[in-house]
Parts: sequence; C-alpha cells; structure tokens
Amino acid sequence: MKKTENTKEPHAVLLLTCKDKTGIVAGISQFLYKNNGNIIYADQHTDEETGVFFMRIEWELNGFKIPKDKIVSKLIPFFKKYKIEYNIHFTNKIPRIAIFVSKEDHCLNDLISRKRNNEFKGDIKLIISNHLELKETSDLFGIPFYFFPINKNNRISQEKKELAVLKKEKIDLIVLAKYMRILTDSFVKKYTRRIINIHHSFLPAFIGRRPYRQAYSRGVKIIGATSHYVTVELDEGPIIEQDVVRISHRDSVHDIVRKGRDIEKVALARAVRLHVENKILVCRNKTIIFD
Amino acid sequence: MKKTENTKEPHAVLLLTCKDKTGIVAGISQFLYKNNGNIIYADQHTDEETGVFFMRIEWELNGFKIPKDKIVSKLIPFFKKYKIEYNIHFTNKIPRIAIFVSKEDHCLNDLISRKRNNEFKGDIKLIISNHLELKETSDLFGIPFYFFPINKNNRISQEKKELAVLKKEKIDLIVLAKYMRILTDSFVKKYTRRIINIHHSFLPAFIGRRPYRQAYSRGVKIIGATSHYVTVELDEGPIIEQDVVRISHRDSVHDIVRKGRDIEKVALARAVRLHVENKILVCRNKTIIFD
Amino acid sequence: MKKTENTKEPHAVLLLTCKDKTGIVAGISQFLYKNNGNIIYADQHTDEETGVFFMRIEWELNGFKIPKDKIVSKLIPFFKKYKIEYNIHFTNKIPRIAIFVSKEDHCLNDLISRKRNNEFKGDIKLIISNHLELKETSDLFGIPFYFFPINKNNRISQEKKELAVLKKEKIDLIVLAKYMRILTDSFVKKYTRRIINIHHSFLPAFIGRRPYRQAYSRGVKIIGATSHYVTVELDEGPIIEQDVVRISHRDSVHDIVRKGRDIEKVALARAVRLHVENKILVCRNKTIIFD
Amino acid sequence: MKKTENTKEPHAVLLLTCKDKTGIVAGISQFLYKNNGNIIYADQHTDEETGVFFMRIEWELNGFKIPKDKIVSKLIPFFKKYKIEYNIHFTNKIPRIAIFVSKEDHCLNDLISRKRNNEFKGDIKLIISNHLELKETSDLFGIPFYFFPINKNNRISQEKKELAVLKKEKIDLIVLAKYMRILTDSFVKKYTRRIINIHHSFLPAFIGRRPYRQAYSRGVKIIGATSHYVTVELDEGPIIEQDVVRISHRDSVHDIVRKGRDIEKVALARAVRLHVENKILVCRNKTIIFD
Repeated sequence: MKKTENTKEPHAVLLLTCKDKTGIVAGISQFLYKNNGNIIYADQHTDEETGVFFMRIEWELNGFKIPKDKIVSKLIPFFKKYKIEYNIHFTNKIPRIAIFVSKEDHCLNDLISRKRNNEFKGDIKLIISNHLELKETSDLFGIPFYFFPINKNNRISQEKKELAVLKKEKIDLIVLAKYMRILTDSFVKKYTRRIINIHHSFLPAFIGRRPYRQAYSRGVKIIGATSHYVTVELDEGPIIEQDVVRISHRDSVHDIVRKGRDIEKVALARAVRLHVENKILVCRNKTIIFD
Repeated sequence: MKKTENTKEPHAVLLLTCKDKTGIVAGISQFLYKNNGNIIYADQHTDEETGVFFMRIEWELNGFKIPKDKIVSKLIPFFKKYKIEYNIHFTNKIPRIAIFVSKEDHCLNDLISRKRNNEFKGDIKLIISNHLELKETSDLFGIPFYFFPINKNNRISQEKKELAVLKKEKIDLIVLAKYMRILTDSFVKKYTRRIINIHHSFLPAFIGRRPYRQAYSRGVKIIGATSHYVTVELDEGPIIEQDVVRISHRDSVHDIVRKGRDIEKVALARAVRLHVENKILVCRNKTIIFD
Repeated sequence: MKKTENTKEPHAVLLLTCKDKTGIVAGISQFLYKNNGNIIYADQHTDEETGVFFMRIEWELNGFKIPKDKIVSKLIPFFKKYKIEYNIHFTNKIPRIAIFVSKEDHCLNDLISRKRNNEFKGDIKLIISNHLELKETSDLFGIPFYFFPINKNNRISQEKKELAVLKKEKIDLIVLAKYMRILTDSFVKKYTRRIINIHHSFLPAFIGRRPYRQAYSRGVKIIGATSHYVTVELDEGPIIEQDVVRISHRDSVHDIVRKGRDIEKVALARAVRLHVENKILVCRNKTIIFD
Repeated sequence: MKKTENTKEPHAVLLLTCKDKTGIVAGISQFLYKNNGNIIYADQHTDEETGVFFMRIEWELNGFKIPKDKIVSKLIPFFKKYKIEYNIHFTNKIPRIAIFVSKEDHCLNDLISRKRNNEFKGDIKLIISNHLELKETSDLFGIPFYFFPINKNNRISQEKKELAVLKKEKIDLIVLAKYMRILTDSFVKKYTRRIINIHHSFLPAFIGRRPYRQAYSRGVKIIGATSHYVTVELDEGPIIEQDVVRISHRDSVHDIVRKGRDIEKVALARAVRLHVENKILVCRNKTIIFD
C-alpha cells in the first residue's frame, strides 16, 4: 500500500455511498485483494443521523488484474447487493476547468499561479466573464476569454451561450472565482456538484451582499471566507472549506477587503484541489472530506 | 514611560471620547508633562464613519503632582472645551465580580483557576445560578452561592432579589459564564457595559438557541465562540473577543460541544481581562480594544 | 458501522503495524465480517520512507461472535503471516492516570476540570510532586498527593519510591503536567510511550530551559506549546500535538507566559485524550494520529 | 484626526527612538498642535529591558503650517534635547523595489498580483536572479530581469554588478522572494534594514537548509514561515511576521512544501507592506510593529 507520487501508472478511486451494513468493507477489500489491487488510501464515514455510509478507496492500477473499463461491470453485483451508489475515477484523467470571473482578479491570478506550480490537477481551458476587466490577464496567460455581459433581460440567452461553450469545451468543473452574478437554477442544475464558489464571509454569517461591509458594521473580530458547491439556494450549498483571519477596530472596510482576499484565495484553491482529487462526498447538504 | 509590572504605586487610566479635533493629544500630554506624569501607555483611534475620537492614556501616580481625587476637577475645563466624555480608573481598584451560571461549569472552573493564578484583576464575590448543579463547585472554592430558580412567572421577582444581592455586594462586573437564561431589559439597563456574556457561536452566525447543533446541521468547517457586552437585543451587543476552532465531518454534535468549550473559555477569559484592565471602549455597537 | 456514543457494550480497537503488503485490509475486514463485527472506524497509513503500514480498526463487541479474550488467539495466524505487531484495546477499560506536577497548577486544574466534564476517559488516581504547592489543590479534589522532593543526591532513591507507588496503583499513563524535573532514563524506559509531557515551546524551537524567555529575546511573533511522549532524549520524543498563539512586541515575558498557558492546557489535554482513546501509533520518532 | 484614505495630500510619518523620559509625547504633540498638524496615528512603546522609547506619529500635511522640507530643521532642537534618533517619511514617496528570486515563483507571482491590486505602495523596478527560470515571468509582466549566476568564485564580482544595478535604479527595498543564495556581509551592510527575506520555517526552528524536510523528519504538527530583515548572521535577523499551518502524518515532504508556500506568500507580503508603510522599528534584534 505504498504511496507513489507522480507515478506514471494511474490509480483508481472509488467513491461509495449506501445505507450502512456489515460486509461492505470486507467485500470491496476482498475484491481488490483477489485481483492484486494495492490499496493506496481507504477511509470511511457513517453519518450518525441518517445511518448512511461513505467510503473512498484508492488503489494502483499497475498490476491490477482487471482492466480499467471492466472494473465497474465486475462490481455491479456487489453494488446491487448493498444498494450502493458509486463513482469511479482514474487519476490520469485531467479535469477541464472553466473559471468565471467579474472584475476582481486575485482568485484568478492565484489559481493560475498554482496551476503553473502544479499544485492541482486540471487544465484551465477558458475564462468566462460578465466584464472586460480581466481580458488582459487572460490574454497574458494565453487562456481563451469569453465575454458575456449580463443584464436583467439577457440572462437566459447569455447563459445559453455560456452553456454552449462549456459543452463544446467538455468542461468538468466550473470555478466561480469572484463571479458576482447569480446563476439561474436551470444552469446550476446542469452542473450539480461541479460548480465551486468562493463566498467572502464565514457562512452562514453575512449571507448575501457586501459581507465585508456587514462584518465591519457588526464589529466582528474575525472574518472568514467559505468555498462551497453551488446549489439553487443562494449561499446555502455544501461547504467545502473555510478559513479565517483576525481583524481589529483599526481595520477599515478597505482593510477588511484586503485581508479577506488572502483567505478567499486559500479557501477556494483548497476546494478546487479537493474536488479534482475526488476527495469530496456530499451527504445531504454537508461535505465529507476524505483528505 | 517605563512599564512597571506589579508596582505598588497605582496608575491612572483615562478613557476619552469626543468629536475629533486637533489639540486633544497635545492638551492631555501637556497636562501630564507639567504635572510630572510618566506616561505608561497611550493609544488612540478615530472612527471613520462617525469621526469620533477615542483615547486611552495611562500614567504613573508615583511622582504625579496632583492627588488622585483632584485629577478630574483639574481636567474639567479641558473636557468641557472639547466636549469630552471621560472615565478615569485607578489600577489599585479591585473590581468586584459576580458570575452567573446554569449547569455547565467549564467557564466557571476556568475563571476560578485563572483568578488563582492571578491572570486577571478582580475578586469573584459571588455566584448566582438558576440551578443547583454548581453549588458544590462554589462551596469547594468557598465562593458564596445564590440559588434563584427562574420560571415563566417569577422572572421579575427573582431578578429583584438578584439585583438586591448585586447591590449589597457592590458588584462592578457581571460575567454570564454559560448562564442559559435571558435577562430582562430592565436588569440589563442597570448594568450597561458591565455584563459580559459568552455565546457559543461565531456571531452573528447561529444566533439564538443550540448554535452547535445549527453548526453541525449546516456542515461548517470552523466553529466559533463570541464574548460580548449584553444589551437588550439578544446576541447583538458589542463583540469583545472571538475565537475559532476547526471541525470536520467526523465531529458529532457532542464533539463540537467539547471543542467549543475550549474556545468559549478563552474568549470569555480574554474579555474579562480586557474589561477589568479598562482596555475596552464602545463606539455605537462596536468595541475598540486598546490592548 | 453506525457510531454509538456512550454505548454500554464496549468496542474493540485493534492497532496494527507491519511491512506494507497487499491482503492485510482484506484479511482483517473479512475476519470481522465473518464474525459479525460491525466496523465503527477504520483508518490506515503507510509511511513513505520506511514502507511500514499502520492501521487502526474499531468494531462493536455487541453481536460479535468471538468472546473478548479469544480474539487475539484467533488472529495469531494472520498476524504471523504478515509479521504484524499488534495491540488490542477494549473501550470499557478505564485507564489509571498519574499526574506529575511541580508548582504551576493550570494544567492540573484543566485536566481535573475536563475529567469532571467527562471530556476524556480515565481516572486520575494520584498526583506526584517534587513540591508541596499543589497539595491543597489535590486535597480539594480528593486526589491522593505524594510528595517526593528531588535534589541532586536523592534522584534515584526518590524515583524508586515513585515507581513503587505507580506500580501499586497499576498506573497506565503518566502525565507530566508542568513537572519541572527530568526523569532518569531508567524511569522513562519503564513507561515507554506511556509518559506524556507538555513542553512550553513550539518544539524544536527553544529546546531546554526557559523557552518563553528565549522566545521573548528572539522576538518571535508566534509562540507554541508541544505535547509529546517522553523519551530518553530530552524534548526529542514523538510529538503528539502542538498549538500556537500570536504575541507582539507589547507582550512582556510575563504576558507570554500567561498566553502560553492557554495553549499548554489545550495541547496537553488533546494528547491525553488521543492516548486514552488509543488513537496514536508511533513510527520511529513520529506519531500517526488516527483521529 | 480623521483617517483619510487615498488622500491627495500626503502625510508625514515620524519615527522616534530615544532613552525614555517624560516630555517627549508632550513636546511632539504640542509642536504639531501649534502648527495645525492633524494627527492621524500615534503609537508608542517602551522596551522593558533597555528602557528605550519608540514612537510612530503620522499627521496630515494638508493645512500644516511648516513646509515638508523645513520640518526636520524645526524639530532639531527638540531631538537634541532628548537625544532622539529620528526618521521622517512622506506618504507620497513611492518606494523602488528590487525582487531577488531563484527558481520558485510563487512569492514573486504573489507580490506582482498584490501590486496590481494596489495592496502595497511601491514600484517593482527590477528582478534579479541567479537562474533563468523566472525570466519568462518577468517578461510577461514587463519587469526588467537581470541574470547574475553565482558560483563559488564569482560571488563578489557578481554582487558588485548587482549593487551597481541597485544603485543606478535607486532601489529602496530589496525583497528576497525565495532567493536561495546567501548574500555577503558586505552586501548586507549596504542595505541594513532594507533587505527582507522569507524563510520557510517557523524560526528559530529549522534554521538553515531544507527546513521542510527537517520538519517532516521531526514529525511536527504545525509548520511556519518567517519574514525578517536580513543581517549578517544567517536567519538571525529581526523577525517581522510569522505564519503557521497545520500538517499531519499524511503530509509528505511534497505536501508540506505546498502548504508552506501559502504561508510564505502571506508572511512575506505582510512584511513588505509594513515596511513600505514605515510601520516597523527595530529594537536590538526585535521588531516593533506599529500597525
């Protein structure tokens, strides 16, 4: 069960969800053992309230007796027996990412910089914006930039164009990196658990607009940032990561915004990384992070 | 301006609030200089939105030419000129503290332990509770325990008795150390900015009842605790201190409660310490901490 | 695999260490499944550098087909096959704890308070000290206090008496809660991985004496505290937990000591809790925390 | 004393150091009051051990009766009387910054991104490197790149060339943003308290080479980063800022390096910001941060 960084041979990652019952761990580990699957990582969790069981298991495909495309069919009887919902991923798949932005560039710059340092797996295929401010940044790094200005009347039609681009580019993950527009329910439902947003507050405190101004007015001593999956309920999706920073009475709204940027960048980048490594499971409105 | 720890001679601490104008710092520092007052600490702040100026200045009485009880009268003309609201404190005054508790003892134990280690100035004169659970703890440490059970009908009459005790014992500061009852507006107004509460959430998130249960249900990744002055609006008083701790999907409500206790203790103890050292000024609903 | 808090029926906890090989997870989970063992927790880790595999697995004894005292003998062939070192624990075993102190009482008070709140499993059977300062605290809580003053000449003979007490009281865990004396190698070896110390610095910074004074002199902006297993090399044992707090140029050594106490208490209490819940494995000089 | 963000009229910032004596605050505040100087900020500190007094005072030049270039001469008698060492700065002065890098670009990218967001005052005039890896990044942002490869024999001669460039470009501040070469004493002395380095450990833990590898081997649970002024003693200069992040046994050296980058960026950026805003005073080997 040796950990192999940067291995050429990919791993398989299996995510399981089902009603908790004995025999699941035994079943899957027996299956891997028989087929010479070297387990790299295994973690599990049972939600107390619902009794739902979650598991993430990762193993080396190098030496594994079953070819990639046959793994699921071999497991189907086991999945059926336990009524298991499953997802399988292979670590050599490179997710195709679209980043949505408006005018602020700190999260975009940060993601690009991390990508160049290979901090997360994935290709930033395109940038979509409702403003032109960050076209220059996109050009600088040679990333295609799509400009879709949004107003009250063109929301649906513009989203259609966006969806066409996303489809054409086979986008796996949408990152809202300070995109200051609310997506329609219809859009959101097409990318369930594949849209990550960064909200500039410690949710559920300061839901909605201008959270730093709200934080300033309330006189809090710590501010936060929250990355979460986008759902149709605004700012209510499953929280992936949060971070905080201290402030004091000396900090103006301007200072709070600046300090907030540091934690926004980190909370968003961690969420993207966890997602592309298939380390997140969702239990109702909560995330299970197998890190 | 040497700092003198544990000096026998007390210091004077002057807290000033007024509309911002030039000449205030010059005026007060000139006054101290002329009278041989050695400044130990001076800090100031101007609230951007209201233009109100706040100052805390502390100096040694040892060698100071004006006797303690004459200081204010000498400064009255200066205060009048600038329409300054002021408070003066002397560091040899030992605040008389009452602690209100219900059933949980971790904050009470923590405060008593800190007091014995001389971590803050003040005498814990009495404990008031609406339950009997912590009588034993009070007895253990020889602190008088007053039992005032509260129900829907006796709230006013019981508070009257509590107020009588507080008055008789000349209590300067009331600490609500997990007191799970809401005080009446009338009670609160009698001790404006002299009641400190610990709320077991990162306010303004999870206002109200069972915040840890709320945090668990929302799936947050960080929980908080908030100490604040009590005002007539529940959980809306000026925040003094906040602290946070990470949680994960593995933490049950029970675990969250346990982790929360650690930050409740610290956030409350810091607030008490800041208060008794006269380091807190209040600007509308926000605190200015001159630490 | 449901989590059952406060269950009457105990759980079994198995800790395994061996050279990494396929089949270990399959073997143990198959064994549990066949015998109707409901897994509550399972986590594993492989050390990259040594290729050593570590596992912690916990299951309900309620319904398990094999009686407690037969479990190991049934597993012996499996352990032999994979050359597994193992430890088995049952959650109804209450560890017997001895606390060593000198003059400072904050960690002692904190542990006693947590114990009364049932924050960790274990009975504080006795307190040993080389000073008399904390006898009163021990008496207050009705814990037997043993006074063994240490000087240059009586170290060995006093430790003999301490060891006799520890043996007689069947002590499982020794907690050095600000015990300011170095134990002899001979003593330490008798309680390998059963002595937890709190060091008042962010190890390995400021090894040795007066770390807060050292931190003050170096002008650091953050101080730390470290809980670790005691080994014969001073301050070099496997680190269990660390915590930190910010300081500034305004903090005197006195302030730093005070701020340090808060993190000492937390870092020590967390280590004790992890230990008594059998969540710590040691890999050479590092800990693996299965939390 | 209203705070005026983005004011067109600059402020004056006076930094004072002297043996502590009564009359200094009175003297300076009287001087400002008489000349209609509106104080924006005033803070002071007295070092306990040496009795040295430090002050930072900032006031608006708008309306101030004395022209910028006459301020010092007017204050000379006062400075002489109290043997005050002083520095005066004007907030409209834009510091000219040189960044030294080697191969890693995360700190460089971060500083450039922050600069574009106007998070700190200063112009990044040039980049100096002993490697060519980051030339492309420099070119991307249009910042002149100077390549000075260093080996055992050419250190002095290359530094001479570097110094010539720095002099020609009138550089005020050198930022070592992961520059993995040690500067000669002679070089360092030419830019006393004007060279800021980021060290990838929680100094003084893990001084020297490969601190993350050291942290991994020691099994610490928290890692740190430290920004400091460079002095001739390696890693011993006055610490400006530190930050930390939790790690676990699951983190490989590779993971630790990645997590470390986040805190390196923040600790370095904060130090640069504090420096260019003239908020740092140095007391022997420690910093006083008037933030």
